[in-house]
Amino acid sequence: MALLVAKFGGSSVASLDKIIRIARRVKHMKELGHQMVIVVSAMGDTTDELIELAAKIGEGLSPREMDMLLATGEQQSAALTALTLQSMGCQAISLTGWQAGIKSDASHSKARISGISNERIKKELDEGNVVVIAGFQGLSPDGDITTLGRGGSDTTAVALAASIKAERCLIFTDVDGVYTADPRIVPEAAKLNQISYEEMLELASLGAVVLQPRAAEFAMLYNVDVEVLSSFNDNPGTIVTEVAKMEKQKIVSGVAHDRQVARFALFDVPDKPGVAKNLFKALANEKINVDMVIQSAMRDERNDIAFTIDRNDLAKAIPVVEEVIRQIGASGMSYSSNIAKVSIVGAGMQSNPGVAASMFEALADEKINIHMISTSEIRVSCIIDEEQVDAAVKALHKMFELDKIS
Amino acid sequence: MALLVAKFGGSSVASLDKIIRIARRVKHMKELGHQMVIVVSAMGDTTDELIELAAKIGEGLSPREMDMLLATGEQQSAALTALTLQSMGCQAISLTGWQAGIKSDASHSKARISGISNERIKKELDEGNVVVIAGFQGLSPDGDITTLGRGGSDTTAVALAASIKAERCLIFTDVDGVYTADPRIVPEAAKLNQISYEEMLELASLGAVVLQPRAAEFAMLYNVDVEVLSSFNDNPGTIVTEVAKMEKQKIVSGVAHDRQVARFALFDVPDKPGVAKNLFKALANEKINVDMVIQSAMRDERNDIAFTIDRNDLAKAIPVVEEVIRQIGASGMSYSSNIAKVSIVGAGMQSNPGVAASMFEALADEKINIHMISTSEIRVSCIIDEEQVDAAVKALHKMFELDKIS
Repeated sequence: MALLVAKFGGSSVASLDKIIRIARRVKHMKELGHQMVIVVSAMGDTTDELIELAAKIGEGLSPREMDMLLATGEQQSAALTALTLQSMGCQAISLTGWQAGIKSDASHSKARISGISNERIKKELDEGNVVVIAGFQGLSPDGDITTLGRGGSDTTAVALAASIKAERCLIFTDVDGVYTADPRIVPEAAKLNQISYEEMLELASLGAVVLQPRAAEFAMLYNVDVEVLSSFNDNPGTIVTEVAKMEKQKIVSGVAHDRQVARFALFDVPDKPGVAKNLFKALANEKINVDMVIQSAMRDERNDIAFTIDRNDLAKAIPVVEEVIRQIGASGMSYSSNIAKVSIVGAGMQSNPGVAASMFEALADEKINIHMISTSEIRVSCIIDEEQVDAAVKALHKMFELDKIS
Repeated sequence: MALLVAKFGGSSVASLDKIIRIARRVKHMKELGHQMVIVVSAMGDTTDELIELAAKIGEGLSPREMDMLLATGEQQSAALTALTLQSMGCQAISLTGWQAGIKSDASHSKARISGISNERIKKELDEGNVVVIAGFQGLSPDGDITTLGRGGSDTTAVALAASIKAERCLIFTDVDGVYTADPRIVPEAAKLNQISYEEMLELASLGAVVLQPRAAEFAMLYNVDVEVLSSFNDNPGTIVTEVAKMEKQKIVSGVAHDRQVARFALFDVPDKPGVAKNLFKALANEKINVDMVIQSAMRDERNDIAFTIDRNDLAKAIPVVEEVIRQIGASGMSYSSNIAKVSIVGAGMQSNPGVAASMFEALADEKINIHMISTSEIRVSCIIDEEQVDAAVKALHKMFELDKIS
């Protein structure tokens, strides 16, 4: 008998039929003796439909009011899930984010959980209830409803698991777990039984989004065991845990890729203090996240600077960069959006030199040109042409023999 | 410049176009210098659609979870109304019931407001906001979302007006105000400029539902001036106020009728203490409201008892009454559902004897048989055959010359 948190995403609660299916699964787990806390997203298209409705009112809508509107989606699916459980004879109660004690900051539409007052949840568990919580939402210090932004339901689940000291946090999704590569590109990609927080975090940041980065961060910070598994079958999933608990440490666990990349190159940037700060602060002010940065060797006290951003931010970034160039007196810039990022991730990389070299070799063998490189302790990423992504992922998967691990 | 509460029902916020229309009206009132608190119902069919969806889960659904589900409807329309006001350059904020400090008892699906902590509302008004509040909902002592049951949005508005000491509570609806009779039956029915709380309450209880009885009660209790008016035109409505404030007191203000009536007759009920108590307690236990009761003259220490209930409760009442008959040893019972109630209401009635006699005369002239009679200080009601309702209402309207008042 364990205390478990289980999160079901929008596709798992898209219709009453699907809610019935997950309710059966939850009921079964309860009957096995587990105490269950369930976190649900809004039903299928509910959120999109509400956004569409609001969009007819106009542009630049107040994030506070949008949160008020959108939070109803999860409240509805939580109530319907509790009702469905009850109809199966399984004692259940639904709670909104604020009822569940989920506190956040006041950054509407992208709030961060700041704490959980879990008294109500514990009381309902003690009374024998499955506690169904509306994901994706919290309460600001002002008493306003917030939504947590992308992946908010995953984060809710992991934060709840940490708060109530659950034995495991189950993230039910539409895939079986974390794979060594995208199976659509590499058919022989294998499902990983285990992966470390650090690896998951790197993968999540790299576009292989099975578990949201913020949720992986929370899991690592509070040492919550997370299992990512499918809501459509009973296969075991991938357990995300700390390295110390893992059976064996792999050198490379997976190959990730991200096509949503755009790159800027700035030419002849004066080599003066504060220049980089001006550039990246101007981008940060517009909430544009910079990923990789490369500053080339100095020539005549001038540098070339290249950096990548999310491709969705490209249009917003162009005028910002143009303005900075004017201010700092660079000679010009270019940008491209037909590039992508491929990465290898593995916790064992730090104690195995030569992994990056093997990666470059595999890419070179496929005549893939590398535009930029960045590394962390457990990751090597290369920016390449987008059209070569599939070939790169296949070559790397083969080089590191990822079809042979699990 | 006044502090006003305005309530808009489901038909007034049925679509974005309609929300835009009421938002213009609210903005206009704000521009005239008024401070505005708005109470909105759910958009058109939202509540019915959610009920329909939940009905697919099964029967006997938990009222607590249904409240959780249904309360989202008002939250959505409140957010959309605030967004619409903002898009017109009118500063606004939406609040749920619990954010607005509306406290209720724990009777889910038919909760009663127990108090309002209006600090947040006052703060938002002070900051120059139109405060848009989700009607129909409150927070139970356990911290659960409740819905207030039928007419809950009216009650929310009146209770809010009382709490913040608003100058007037405007109830926007799909009719122009309170009429001397149903204009669909009596084309020459006149709109009343004013009506007393007591009269409104009697009318509201009699099926002429322009303002919900519970709301009228609140208005009377806290002495809130209420104006019932149309959201589809700019005509002045009917002001519901205390008798002392009224220009003149009429003997009869209106004729009401109610077709939703069913009647039971119990025969040969033993004349022993506690018999009536047993009967009406058994009905009360099933939440069946008894309206009129008549106990006939005793014969051989046995009575006949007749009473009326809401026709919707008939099926539920039959087994209850049958069981009571068995217990108390009555000889039998009959029930009928093809009856209706017609009533005359007027604050001046108490000082004008002979009004009831005139009513009976008018009905007799039309050959309308009276099955039961009940009276209050300002009302006389008769149970008649349902098929004679139209004729009765017309005759009474004419008898009391109601087309000549306003």
